[in-house]
Amino acid sequence: MSKLRFRISMSFDGFVAGPNQSVENPLGVGGERLHEWVVALASWRAPHGLEGGEVNESTPVVEESLENIGATLMGRNMFGGHPGPWDAENPWKGWWGKNPPFHHPVFVLTHHAREPLEMDGGTTFTFVTDGIESALEQARRAAGGKDVALAGGAKAAQQYLAAGLVDEMEIHLVPTLLGGGERLFEGVGDNLHGLELVRTVATPQVTHLKFARR
Amino acid sequence: MSKLRFRISMSFDGFVAGPNQSVENPLGVGGERLHEWVVALASWRAPHGLEGGEVNESTPVVEESLENIGATLMGRNMFGGHPGPWDAENPWKGWWGKNPPFHHPVFVLTHHAREPLEMDGGTTFTFVTDGIESALEQARRAAGGKDVALAGGAKAAQQYLAAGLVDEMEIHLVPTLLGGGERLFEGVGDNLHGLELVRTVATPQVTHLKFARR
Repeated sequence: MSKLRFRISMSFDGFVAGPNQSVENPLGVGGERLHEWVVALASWRAPHGLEGGEVNESTPVVEESLENIGATLMGRNMFGGHPGPWDAENPWKGWWGKNPPFHHPVFVLTHHAREPLEMDGGTTFTFVTDGIESALEQARRAAGGKDVALAGGAKAAQQYLAAGLVDEMEIHLVPTLLGGGERLFEGVGDNLHGLELVRTVATPQVTHLKFARR
Repeated sequence: MSKLRFRISMSFDGFVAGPNQSVENPLGVGGERLHEWVVALASWRAPHGLEGGEVNESTPVVEESLENIGATLMGRNMFGGHPGPWDAENPWKGWWGKNPPFHHPVFVLTHHAREPLEMDGGTTFTFVTDGIESALEQARRAAGGKDVALAGGAKAAQQYLAAGLVDEMEIHLVPTLLGGGERLFEGVGDNLHGLELVRTVATPQVTHLKFARR
């Protein structure tokens, strides 16, 4: 069956975004430090339209995470813009420009209904207002037999983790502290809901810890 | 120079003890799950007077952490018993019985003065009321050229980490959630105060991440 696969970069003190997130600073103060390891990689830069970059021990981990994904799920905060109802005159279209790096259907969890938004390069944002299970069902259908990526942010991930709906999770643990911001595992409970550590790839910049159901 | 070396087991959501710590349940609810990996090891069981146990990839990590230690520092909460002034009639003597596993001088941070307590096997508990730097200085002197171990708990560790006084830190990251309890990195700030990841040893039960000053 099509799996729900979640991966995210997390600080050593458990944050996936720094404090004071805003349109100008979507990752919060210091949050960009969580992504330095991946932004340096050729295999991340290419799909984001950037040249150059490194090939290192993290490369196969990132390549694997991009394979066999047919649809993406994300929370409203990750799609971004502003809280509350959409701006009717100048609606927010995501952080990623005209040609977002997804190139497949993306489902955005929100309390505010909105028509689907078609972007260049095969990315369509569909706004789902009837809950995480409906969004997952729609994403699975759209993925056409491939897996569904859960892109974040923290609150969307917490809901899917707590409901036991995540089939694979890879935490890219970055050896630094943020000291504040959005915690990944807040309210998820006192266990990993059936997920077990199945692989660790260690580098000086980041430790990749992959969890799956046995 | 004699180093201050800290090692502790931490859950994937950043807790070093579960919620509701008590004399009956010193590690808090679920906290024993953080220590299953080490209690199973022969190299931990022997100094605690227990027979048997495994030898595995964690063995050299634990053996290294026990080497060249001449004194130990700990917080009042780790020494345990009860908060506030010591019971004059029946003073708490630690969790470890008549012959604690330290076999060297131990310095306990407390707000409540008390005479030193000599136990069997070479362990003496000295109670320090004039702060973390004084305790470290006393421990260094007592260590006679060897290193000082910072045993915990969370609050003592936070103070030494935030002050930049820790020279080596090894986190034994356990792939489970506790969902509540005592967080290790609360109030430590937005960086590791000069510590950098220098080694990772990955096993299915625990990931050992060692930090040091370069």
